[in-house]
Amino acid sequence: MKNIIIGQSGGPTSVINASLAGVYKEAKKQGYNKVYGMVNGIEGFLNENIVDLDKYLKDKTNYELLKRTPSSFLGSCRYKLPSYKDDKKTYEKIFSILEKHKIDSMIYIGGNDSMDTVKMLSDYAKSNHKKQNFIGVPKTIDNDLPIIDHCPGFASCAKYIATSLKEIIRDNSVYGDTKKQVCIVEIMGRHAGWLTASSSLAKDKTCEGVDLIYLPEVFFDKDDFVKKVKNLLKVKSSVVIAVSEGIKTKDGKFVCEINSVKKTDAFGHKELSGTSLALADLIKNNIDVKTRAIELSTLQRSAAHIQSLIDLKEAEKAGMMGAKLAYQNKSGLMVIYKRISNKPYKIKYSSYDIHDIANIEKKVPLEWIDTKNNYVKQDLIDYMKPLIQGEVKQIYEDGLPKHIVL
Amino acid sequence: MKNIIIGQSGGPTSVINASLAGVYKEAKKQGYNKVYGMVNGIEGFLNENIVDLDKYLKDKTNYELLKRTPSSFLGSCRYKLPSYKDDKKTYEKIFSILEKHKIDSMIYIGGNDSMDTVKMLSDYAKSNHKKQNFIGVPKTIDNDLPIIDHCPGFASCAKYIATSLKEIIRDNSVYGDTKKQVCIVEIMGRHAGWLTASSSLAKDKTCEGVDLIYLPEVFFDKDDFVKKVKNLLKVKSSVVIAVSEGIKTKDGKFVCEINSVKKTDAFGHKELSGTSLALADLIKNNIDVKTRAIELSTLQRSAAHIQSLIDLKEAEKAGMMGAKLAYQNKSGLMVIYKRISNKPYKIKYSSYDIHDIANIEKKVPLEWIDTKNNYVKQDLIDYMKPLIQGEVKQIYEDGLPKHIVL
Repeated sequence: MKNIIIGQSGGPTSVINASLAGVYKEAKKQGYNKVYGMVNGIEGFLNENIVDLDKYLKDKTNYELLKRTPSSFLGSCRYKLPSYKDDKKTYEKIFSILEKHKIDSMIYIGGNDSMDTVKMLSDYAKSNHKKQNFIGVPKTIDNDLPIIDHCPGFASCAKYIATSLKEIIRDNSVYGDTKKQVCIVEIMGRHAGWLTASSSLAKDKTCEGVDLIYLPEVFFDKDDFVKKVKNLLKVKSSVVIAVSEGIKTKDGKFVCEINSVKKTDAFGHKELSGTSLALADLIKNNIDVKTRAIELSTLQRSAAHIQSLIDLKEAEKAGMMGAKLAYQNKSGLMVIYKRISNKPYKIKYSSYDIHDIANIEKKVPLEWIDTKNNYVKQDLIDYMKPLIQGEVKQIYEDGLPKHIVL
Repeated sequence: MKNIIIGQSGGPTSVINASLAGVYKEAKKQGYNKVYGMVNGIEGFLNENIVDLDKYLKDKTNYELLKRTPSSFLGSCRYKLPSYKDDKKTYEKIFSILEKHKIDSMIYIGGNDSMDTVKMLSDYAKSNHKKQNFIGVPKTIDNDLPIIDHCPGFASCAKYIATSLKEIIRDNSVYGDTKKQVCIVEIMGRHAGWLTASSSLAKDKTCEGVDLIYLPEVFFDKDDFVKKVKNLLKVKSSVVIAVSEGIKTKDGKFVCEINSVKKTDAFGHKELSGTSLALADLIKNNIDVKTRAIELSTLQRSAAHIQSLIDLKEAEKAGMMGAKLAYQNKSGLMVIYKRISNKPYKIKYSSYDIHDIANIEKKVPLEWIDTKNNYVKQDLIDYMKPLIQGEVKQIYEDGLPKHIVL
């Protein structure tokens, strides 16, 4: 009888637990005996913080609640595994804990940095003739993992962003010509503009959509920005602009850094925020118009109450695929989706060598960006649109969405 | 045959259009011939910007869409009607437009300032022997109108706040003891803390709830705040704090003003924002912990995708009640709710003299606030809890909530 352990890592999404649920279900089906969860990722695992998932997920209602609970059920960490050349001891500790608990397989659900952990652990196992295998299940709202068509978690976030923008646009236009208003909405995505691009989905038969979209793939030009807003205000009373937290000027400076000093996190990533505030100030200083800055912040990644049904199903299946690969004793792979067709929308589940994925960021291709008009091209809209389809029947109790917690 | 006109004014809510729908439906039922809408409130009316609502609302699907469309369908204004002692001409113009279009009744859907408009128009009509009558239908997320038990629009906003806080709390606690985090969530409510108090509803069987609640009814003490956060961080890794945009220190200064200069709007209200940022800075300067500021901004008042069913139904009925009163030739009244019982939740619709309502703000009673612990008392929770019950079946198209626009 084999045992398996699952971890979740990095920033959470609103469907990361659907993947956890999928791994659990399929692991049991495949024949794993114990299905463990590590609390707070590899960092918690190093402290032997382990739970038996049967305790929580045997119950069918709990299983359904888990799929609808945002943020990582098992907790997360931002721990960077050292290279095994620098720190063999940490690896020895990890494998001794695995052996102690008779764990054969590990599945790590996460984004770019988490896939690096899978890579290093599977490489170590191979080099040191360890029997344990390691599989990555993708998760990131940022949609910036390579090879995979799109990442679980992205679509639910995109659905929240598009919905919120439709609502913000309605709100911002309420005074009509009696009071012109500019609203800048700041969206997550440090280097990749996928989420900010999803603001384009707000446009439909009854919604004029956002007016300008600023992605981190394109340098931000201050003067051009002010000119475009001025021109828009000549023809319309409500201007709504979507902007990525990570936009930079030509000299390589983050727009949000212009006025403030920011810290860096454990991975050396700069903590960004304040981009919308900086742009609102820029408008206020150049144009006499009411301007509001809205930062979607962690709301966008935790809004499970408006999950995309497609995303939820795919995230669960990605977890199931991970458990299958693990049971087949595969290692050093990440589950991927390949898109077969757009109309009808169809994907195929597969897997790929983690070495081609870890630490590589997939940005929005420049040919999908309308640089001149600060917007996105139809190809990008066609790519995103199928992903936000379908609504999940949420489970409410006493007026609020019901969750499950450890 | 009588005709009626409806206007919407002030900041929008996610059920303000349910009241508009209710007025339309009942006005037709009562026997009004034409049901007009004024575009952009009394300001648009002065420019004869008028639409025939039959064009939009005869269709049943449109009627249902209207109830689910956030922000004011007819547009809004922040126009302050001058006193008729100062400016009789504006009044003469209003009544000449009413007479020109053979309009007998006006219903104005709005908050505090809008009720002042109803008061002044009905007073003018009475003093000048005009036959037209004026009725107010309440609307405000702020819940600060007096006499009425609670205001249409408040509950949907509260449901959004409680839901978002449940999600934020899940997100903020994801790193457990591996990374402590403080999150400050800024909620609307300039002088009345009702909305901020609704953050307390996030607490349930699976959610620890927010840790501290700062209402504008109580002076903000900087040192006590820092001390409380420090103490919380000794016993828990995730601290989430709800704070009203309008909190002031003992010397009468808005907390958000400490670092910035703010403008005032047409009503002399200061435009507030940045309170959460100011508090996050305060923590960063005194405690070494990751701190995030989230401002719910206009998201909270336009999140129709998560309307409260109770609120939606009540808002529609308030509109219907308004149409009834208008047809009975009543004037200078606002529709009110009286609470009959909490368990089971039951209210009665009635009306009240607008002179006792206009320009009066109802704050959270001090006996409902736990000042010592910066929290709210059970009585306040019991008052709010019934209002957020029930979910509205939203109408989605192509992955997004469908709206109706002028």
